[in-house]
Amino acid sequence: MQYPQIPAFAARPGVIRLAGHRGARGVLPENTMEGFAFTLAAGVELLELDVTATRDGVPVITHNHRLTRSMIRGADGCWLQGEEPKVSSLTYAELQTYDAGGLDGRSTYGQRFPDQAFLTGVRIPRLADLLALLQRPEHKNVHLLLEIKSDPDLIGDTAARRKLVEAVVSEVRQAKMQPRTVLHSFDWDLLAECQRIAPEMPASFLTQLPDNADDPGEDSSKAVNPVAGCSALDLPDRVAAAKGQFWCPYFQDITADALARARALGLVTVVWTVNEPEDIDRMIALGVDAICTDYPGRVQRRLLMHGLHWRTE
Amino acid sequence: MQYPQIPAFAARPGVIRLAGHRGARGVLPENTMEGFAFTLAAGVELLELDVTATRDGVPVITHNHRLTRSMIRGADGCWLQGEEPKVSSLTYAELQTYDAGGLDGRSTYGQRFPDQAFLTGVRIPRLADLLALLQRPEHKNVHLLLEIKSDPDLIGDTAARRKLVEAVVSEVRQAKMQPRTVLHSFDWDLLAECQRIAPEMPASFLTQLPDNADDPGEDSSKAVNPVAGCSALDLPDRVAAAKGQFWCPYFQDITADALARARALGLVTVVWTVNEPEDIDRMIALGVDAICTDYPGRVQRRLLMHGLHWRTE
Repeated sequence: MQYPQIPAFAARPGVIRLAGHRGARGVLPENTMEGFAFTLAAGVELLELDVTATRDGVPVITHNHRLTRSMIRGADGCWLQGEEPKVSSLTYAELQTYDAGGLDGRSTYGQRFPDQAFLTGVRIPRLADLLALLQRPEHKNVHLLLEIKSDPDLIGDTAARRKLVEAVVSEVRQAKMQPRTVLHSFDWDLLAECQRIAPEMPASFLTQLPDNADDPGEDSSKAVNPVAGCSALDLPDRVAAAKGQFWCPYFQDITADALARARALGLVTVVWTVNEPEDIDRMIALGVDAICTDYPGRVQRRLLMHGLHWRTE
Repeated sequence: MQYPQIPAFAARPGVIRLAGHRGARGVLPENTMEGFAFTLAAGVELLELDVTATRDGVPVITHNHRLTRSMIRGADGCWLQGEEPKVSSLTYAELQTYDAGGLDGRSTYGQRFPDQAFLTGVRIPRLADLLALLQRPEHKNVHLLLEIKSDPDLIGDTAARRKLVEAVVSEVRQAKMQPRTVLHSFDWDLLAECQRIAPEMPASFLTQLPDNADDPGEDSSKAVNPVAGCSALDLPDRVAAAKGQFWCPYFQDITADALARARALGLVTVVWTVNEPEDIDRMIALGVDAICTDYPGRVQRRLLMHGLHWRTE
């Protein structure tokens, strides 16, 4: 099967692709319309984002399964107190009472992004809001790396997984965005569901080897990522065996051998989340297909220094 | 005289003001509509910008007197070669053929802003373009620190200076933006002209002591800045003697004594250009009125860490 999405993500001579991670988390609040608007205005054509569903089944763009007090304020403007509510326990209307516009600088997570602007009155968007924005003619070349977050409390619940995938795919199809969307997950069971329900969209297999630390302040994906006992070089074959089109390793896991193997298997390789100049340079030197980053401007500038670009026209 | 502009720039309990320097030079190309849009979207209400005039007398927003090859590409998409043309030698139509969308990372200037996004097809805006944007109701609280750049080749040319000030003031008045504009310059002769022509706008006196290095890659303003032989503590009295309302020192020049003297004289004190976290913290500890920065998100986050905000509502 030929996928029309693939050329937008694949490197070519003179071009390594650039994906804005959750918009541009280093600059503006993650997974917000404000952050996506900035990323698009900066000339970035690949957006990475995280999707889960509310209690009433609305696909929304947010990373963690619980509203996290390092980045969510209540209707009173104060950082969340007490137990962090699960997104899946709230209706979309209830979710709109929370403010996702900034980070608490006292938290470990907040300290990881010290330049992120602090906004007020920012809502967790629906997937449909972003899909609507991308209908505008000026965004016709924008593609999505749409990560579906499986609920760690529902591992093994096939019906729940199917319902989530169906809800997401339905919205993508309603917006006619299938030719510009890649479905992306750490949960390979969920990706199998994507392949069954939406064979017209490539499946993108995230990997993180167990000996690498989780990112502080974020949900870990290791519980759903079936790569225990693998070496880096095993991963492309595992993805190919699962009939994936994209391999998306944590950037510290990739090696030249593994990248060469992925290429031999016909996989597109997108590394995440690459923020430090020396790491960006290393990924450029390796020759990955795409770099997913919280700092799109920084990656643009490193690519240019190497005589490369992130777009073809 | 009471100036309605002053409360927007003056500190108050719990509030130190934040001005975006040339928009947000650390994030997006300086003095561009793209950069101003980002700065406004980040909730910043004070915009600093630089204005000079084209050959046909159009006030345009740009810093250096010559189109500078570290930041300007020609119509062919290549960095400028040969002699850098003076802005005042080009018509506005001619100026629109150049691209101000990014920095050349090989230049000293480009290396100062390694995270600045790289855009293509960005035009040097007219002052009128920004004034039109600020007519939108959502920007009603936005104020301008409008720096007028005197041509170093025309020092002592009173007629040229008057013509420039008249052109700028005329546009501000046409847009009815006088109550939200402060006129700002290193050139105190030019500020005297501003005070004569536009007494309804406060005059903001920039200072940089001669023993501080110029910023690499930028026009120096020392030739027009009459502070030779001054100490920091002399500066507020000099500004007050010139009937200024704002004192805007280079942040390395300010001392607690000088700030106290400025306050005793009723001056608003805005420091520039403060980008490093430790310098931002030092300016917060001093208690200046406003901080002008290339990294608005970073200053927001430092203010919040000190229990402060940059807006009153």
